[in-house]
Parts: sequence; structure tokens; C-alpha cells
Amino acid sequence: MTPVVILVNPQMGENIGAVARAMANFGLTELRLVAPRDGWPNPNANNVAAHAVSILEAAKIYPDFRSALEGIHCAYATTGRPRDMEKRVITPAEAMDEVVKNDASGAACALVFGPERTGMTNEDIVLCDTIVNIPTAPEYRSLNIAQSSVVMFYEWFKAATENVDVARDLPSPAPKQEWLGLFDQLESYLDGAEFFRVADKKPVMWQNIQNFLLRGKWSDQEIRTLRGVLRSIWERRRG
Amino acid sequence: MTPVVILVNPQMGENIGAVARAMANFGLTELRLVAPRDGWPNPNANNVAAHAVSILEAAKIYPDFRSALEGIHCAYATTGRPRDMEKRVITPAEAMDEVVKNDASGAACALVFGPERTGMTNEDIVLCDTIVNIPTAPEYRSLNIAQSSVVMFYEWFKAATENVDVARDLPSPAPKQEWLGLFDQLESYLDGAEFFRVADKKPVMWQNIQNFLLRGKWSDQEIRTLRGVLRSIWERRRG
Repeated sequence: MTPVVILVNPQMGENIGAVARAMANFGLTELRLVAPRDGWPNPNANNVAAHAVSILEAAKIYPDFRSALEGIHCAYATTGRPRDMEKRVITPAEAMDEVVKNDASGAACALVFGPERTGMTNEDIVLCDTIVNIPTAPEYRSLNIAQSSVVMFYEWFKAATENVDVARDLPSPAPKQEWLGLFDQLESYLDGAEFFRVADKKPVMWQNIQNFLLRGKWSDQEIRTLRGVLRSIWERRRG
Repeated sequence: MTPVVILVNPQMGENIGAVARAMANFGLTELRLVAPRDGWPNPNANNVAAHAVSILEAAKIYPDFRSALEGIHCAYATTGRPRDMEKRVITPAEAMDEVVKNDASGAACALVFGPERTGMTNEDIVLCDTIVNIPTAPEYRSLNIAQSSVVMFYEWFKAATENVDVARDLPSPAPKQEWLGLFDQLESYLDGAEFFRVADKKPVMWQNIQNFLLRGKWSDQEIRTLRGVLRSIWERRRG
């Protein structure tokens, strides 16, 4: 399986088309769009996509990033390093070696790109496992999405066409929906328990919690177990 | 020194701007344009270049590819593999490792891109030492210049920022002007000698000759020696 490409709130149709074209060049096929600004379909995207229009026609639309993570196990966000967040940051080459290995072990990966001007929100970044940082000149860091997607897909193609000797002892990480279920369950418990005493501080605190949990890279079974643990603790408290 | 970027007969100003932007992202500064189709300066280029307008303003314009090779020792052409020509073809990563090593030994390198639709002519390709082929999906090979320049500059930046342990025994290859002088001298001798008996066959034969000569990677001194050898042979023949 090839990685899924997710564009979060893409703005210009031309950029969506450029991403689709680069996908075709490097053998990627599945595109997901989260709430594209100018609606969908978008003729500006088709104009730029050249022979990759079939990728646009097959693109799936989602209302938010959470739902776009359907069936995904590992999400890699190409974005600047967010402040105030502990998150693993690696290079495109490192990321794509992992993606190829994850794929071989049955874990579906997503390559995630944020909106052109503002980048991804912290709320969305927190749901990704890893941030991918493309090395650039310090004086002029900003790559546009047409450029950064080419780099990412090119590195994926290189990694996928090398002979990768896969040896994995770890279980495949759980699909993102399992993680979201865990997070929703935990958040409702924490809210119910008035864990976040100062409402202003909740967003950052809750981000940090999700981040360190995600770093566990748990399998389905491990998340189910953890959810059972939490539930039992919660129900004991109410009882 | 960072490699020089040469665009041969670029067509759309937007593409020149996109190349300049990618140059700035990856720390390249010197741009040479060979007879841009729409003249120069070109406001469409500035619109796309974003903060890289200074690169466009400093760009040098040349009437043909030969003159644009001024001061260059090694030229790498990003283009499809030409038919009917024996030329070394390597990947971007391999090329950029070489470029960094060449630079450390004092040889100025050029990254060359052809016109958007037609690609480089064989006459221009033959003056390049090496063809760089970006690996792509077999079903859809064609990258546009905005895409291929990002890949090339990204790989250069990666190679240049790694610790490269340079160990070179070979002398630095001669500047391209030395090669052109050699070729001109040799061609005039061959024409004078009616070497190319069938005029139709001259272009391909002459290409092949230049190609196998270039593979020698001679230094200034070696080319001067060879030119002296040829001259002495030629003058002996006339005498």
C-alpha cells in the first residue's frame, strides 16, 4: 500500500492540483481533502494536475482532520516545529524509511499537509505521530505546499524503491480511530473529574497529555487494554 | 561556492520565479538565463519568486548555452535520457555528492535545466558532463521545472550540510571554456580535413566525439597539452 495524502483545509485549487500531479509522478494514488476552502470539485485544481486528474476525481472529502484519519495508523505532518509542544521531529528521508517499514508491517501511513498560510493548528498536529521538517536555508525557510509535497513524495519513492530489509519486532501501531476513541474517553473522564481546574490552561495541558500518550505507539490490543483500565478506574470512582 | 543554476531558453516567467524561490529556500544564489523566451526582466517571474526577487535581479542573461558556461568546470543537466547519445546518467543524490566534492576541490558546478516543453537539445546536452535523472513512477514520468528544481536543490542542500570527507587525487577538471576552445579547434581541423564526408552524419558523429572526449575529465593543463598536440599535427599536415 502507498501512503495516503491528507491536505488539511487547502486554500488554492492550483496547489491541490500541484500536489496531485506530484503524487502521480511518484506513484501515490489516495488523496483526502479536509474541508477545502473553495469547495469541491475545483476546476483550478484540474488545470494544474495535468495527467493526474484521476487522483482528484477519486479524492475523498472530510469535514475535519479527525475523520480524515479513518483507517490510518501513523500520521506524518509536514509543518514547522510548533512552539509549546513536545513532538518528535525528523527529516523527510528518515520519515520515509519509517513509512516503508510501517507499510510492510501492515500499518497505513498518512502524509499530512496543512493550509498554505497558517499551517496546521496545534489541535491537528497533536493527532500526528511525527513532524517532518524539510531542511532549508535558515534565511528563507518557507516552502510552499507544491514544493514540500514534491520533496516528501520524492523521498517516499526513493525509500520504496530501494531494497528495504524489514525486520520489526514491535506490533503495528493502532489505527488513529482507536487513539481518538481513547482520547475522547479520557477527556470526558478528565472533564468529569474537573481535572483541568483552570479552563485557560486546558488546551495546552490536554495537548501534552495526548502527545506523550501517542509516543507509546501502542497496538490495538494495548489501547483496548488501556481503555478498559481507564473505564474501570472511572466507574469505580463514580460508584 | 554554491552551484550556479542555468535555465536554458526558459519559457514561462512563472517557472523562472519558482526556480528562484526554490534556490532561496535551499541557499543557492547565482542564476543564469539563456535567451528567456519572453525577454527579461519578466514581471511574472517576480510575482512567483516571493522573497527571492534579489536572485532574479542579479540573474545574468546569455545569448546561448555555450557562453552561459563561462567559468563552469562541471555541468549537470536535469533532463530525460537522450536517445542516440552515450552519456553518464546518475541520480540527484549521487550528483550532489559529486557537486559538493567538486566544489571543495575548486571546480565550479552548474545545475542545468532545459526549456519546459522541448527539453534540452542534443547540442547543449553534449556540453554537459552528466545527466541527472530524477527517479519517478514509470506511468507518469514528466516533472515540471518547478518540481525538478526543488528536488535538485533539496538534494544539494542535504549533501552540502552533511559532513563531507573530501579526498580527491584527481586534478580539478578544466573550466568549460577550455573544453569549448578544444572542441572549436578540433572541429575546424576536422572540417578543414573533410573528416565528415557525409554532411548528414556530421551532427551525430561530432556529438559522439565530444562526449567521449569529455569523459576524460581533463584538467586545464591536460587540455592545453592536447590542443598543442592537435595543433602540431594540423600544422604538420598543411606544411
